[in-house]
Amino acid sequence: MTRTLLRNVRPWGGAPADVLVDETGILEVAPAAEAAAPATDAPAGASDLEVVDGAGGILLPSFSDVHVHLDSTRMGLPFRPNTAGPSRMDRILNDRANWRSAEQPVAARATYTLERMIAQGATRVRSHAQVDADSGLEKFEGVLAAREAHRDRAHVEIVAFPQVGIHLEDGVPDLLDEALRNGADLVGGIDPCEIDRDPKRHLDTVFELAERHGVGIDVHLHEAGSLGLFSLDLIVERTRALGLAGRVSVSHAFALASTVPGVERALEDVAELDIALTTIAPKGSLTHPLDLPIGRLRDLGIRVGLGMDGQRDYWSPWGNGDMLERAFLLAYTQGYSNDDDIEDALAVATWGGANVIDGSLRRLGADGRPGVAVGDPAELVVVRGETPTSAVMDRFPERVVVHAGRVVAEGGELR
Amino acid sequence: MTRTLLRNVRPWGGAPADVLVDETGILEVAPAAEAAAPATDAPAGASDLEVVDGAGGILLPSFSDVHVHLDSTRMGLPFRPNTAGPSRMDRILNDRANWRSAEQPVAARATYTLERMIAQGATRVRSHAQVDADSGLEKFEGVLAAREAHRDRAHVEIVAFPQVGIHLEDGVPDLLDEALRNGADLVGGIDPCEIDRDPKRHLDTVFELAERHGVGIDVHLHEAGSLGLFSLDLIVERTRALGLAGRVSVSHAFALASTVPGVERALEDVAELDIALTTIAPKGSLTHPLDLPIGRLRDLGIRVGLGMDGQRDYWSPWGNGDMLERAFLLAYTQGYSNDDDIEDALAVATWGGANVIDGSLRRLGADGRPGVAVGDPAELVVVRGETPTSAVMDRFPERVVVHAGRVVAEGGELR
Repeated sequence: MTRTLLRNVRPWGGAPADVLVDETGILEVAPAAEAAAPATDAPAGASDLEVVDGAGGILLPSFSDVHVHLDSTRMGLPFRPNTAGPSRMDRILNDRANWRSAEQPVAARATYTLERMIAQGATRVRSHAQVDADSGLEKFEGVLAAREAHRDRAHVEIVAFPQVGIHLEDGVPDLLDEALRNGADLVGGIDPCEIDRDPKRHLDTVFELAERHGVGIDVHLHEAGSLGLFSLDLIVERTRALGLAGRVSVSHAFALASTVPGVERALEDVAELDIALTTIAPKGSLTHPLDLPIGRLRDLGIRVGLGMDGQRDYWSPWGNGDMLERAFLLAYTQGYSNDDDIEDALAVATWGGANVIDGSLRRLGADGRPGVAVGDPAELVVVRGETPTSAVMDRFPERVVVHAGRVVAEGGELR
Repeated sequence: MTRTLLRNVRPWGGAPADVLVDETGILEVAPAAEAAAPATDAPAGASDLEVVDGAGGILLPSFSDVHVHLDSTRMGLPFRPNTAGPSRMDRILNDRANWRSAEQPVAARATYTLERMIAQGATRVRSHAQVDADSGLEKFEGVLAAREAHRDRAHVEIVAFPQVGIHLEDGVPDLLDEALRNGADLVGGIDPCEIDRDPKRHLDTVFELAERHGVGIDVHLHEAGSLGLFSLDLIVERTRALGLAGRVSVSHAFALASTVPGVERALEDVAELDIALTTIAPKGSLTHPLDLPIGRLRDLGIRVGLGMDGQRDYWSPWGNGDMLERAFLLAYTQGYSNDDDIEDALAVATWGGANVIDGSLRRLGADGRPGVAVGDPAELVVVRGETPTSAVMDRFPERVVVHAGRVVAEGGELR
């Protein structure tokens, strides 16, 4: 089995160390330069040991982007002014009107964007793939192709995602079913009240598909305030009744950012049923609160991960594949200025998303603080920086990216 | 007089042009490559014409940082974890406890940070300089030295700023008076209720100093909600009574981000008395709203500029001298995603601050849209990008920076 020795790296900004990894995880963390030299330490197949100079960089768990839309991206294509109106449906229809005329097909666009994400340090990705009457499975297949192209560089989960609802247009349940038979890992849902305007039927279909295929669920929930709490409660109810604790995620969950009555009770339900949350670090306002209470989620033991959402697409120009920048934006939008808080934002972008993807991981350090240690998965990134906080502030492009124990990207480019 | 020809640049993202400037401003904007060649077009002193290749970049007004604290920066020094507590006074005292032990004196730190700001495209700067019983005029003199070091590269205004109040410690009014006699351009103030706890006396002293020295005023106003509106009203009252319309700025003005009764009336007063506002694009929350209503300010014709605040200092780790990044954060925190809105954020970072510093400029394009045209000041920056919006999204480091008609920085470094 190939092993990799990361020389002179500082796990979560700690003392310089030499870190030995293989496909199974981190095997050894030794003080830098004191690790046995490869020639004497490799009992068999020394030639299978790759030694990489970490140059004193900070070793972190790799970034996890747990909420991205690889099928909508225009990264790498000519910049296109935004022609969408302000509402969610305006943006859905703007994408529908324009995606087919993109300079490249979905597969090429998704593959390029996934490349840029990996090159900048993300090796765990959960991508939504839009399934609707207009695109059929074409977008889904594009995301499948991107996953296949990078199968040795990142772990990619795909959500069969009914962006335009399930019951507004014909054939969507069958398309979701087909996607789940053909490689989708989770079934998605969206705003059960606002899109289908039939929350019971929407969620019953989602949960029925999940049961039939034995897959997890990830529901986009933009609905605000008490309406969003109602939809969340319908999700909670079904999660509890079907024994799906730990298998359900809710994305955005803007209702939990509000101050309407019932938020605390909803947080307790989410914690009890181990429902994972994903955020894209949005910026809310007084009238449209969007920012999840990250510190409170941590205190309640609720799994929460970070994502890029669409990237430079027909919805908005934001997003560039760099999850370290999105961690910077999470810290900024949370108003953080002390080091522990900023490291918490970095933890959401790394361990947090890893925990969302693998609910059994539960890795945020024995003392509740994030870290990197023997036994951790060999999904790692080395970033330049003095401390984890300064690394978030500086976001230097120099990175070394490790997936399944092997270096897959260096200096911002794939190997 | 030295002239500079910026070849192949796109004014505010428009058609490629050759732009001729001198110290007095933009002399000519001609379609690219059609501008008369230097050899035939320069009647006298052709050798005084410098030709610079803009490489198709976007020509913008230079960035204006109208709210920075050059005296507190630790940019370029070893990163220091934040040891400040959460309150404003905690941070004031954390700075007081530590600034003397910085690796470099104030002048060196301020000079380096101003260099990084200019190199990234800011040629108009309004810096606060803390004047208090602890530091006397030492910090002020450090900022003066930085201004002097870069006098040929940027226009720098200095605010004599009583960070710890005016009447809590002995001798502050005299120190402010001395600073104003020795090069300060404006007199500052801060949270008249919360710091001195004597708003009348605080503001009377500020306005009295302004009148005595014939200088403008810039008051930090972090006070929230109705308390902040009260302090703002005291400022409005004095501005009106003393005929200082157009001479007063209020920084932060968090109270205008709230929903308490009186905000609309306060905005009308601010517009009537031509009080300028500065923002650092802070991220507020439901309980602590901080985000100025940028679109509303524009519609009311209120001058508003952007700033970095402290940069990597004893208050917080944020800030890196790059005003294009701060424009990106302004657009992000305002929740902008269409091009006109994002260009408005860029306009605040460029023309907006220029208007704050020079109230007679009033330059945001004849049609209300930002732009670059003949007659504008020769304070310019060329940034790489396809459109103004994509330039904000990408924040490429390649820049050409022009101050007073001459190139002062290229490729991220001073000439």
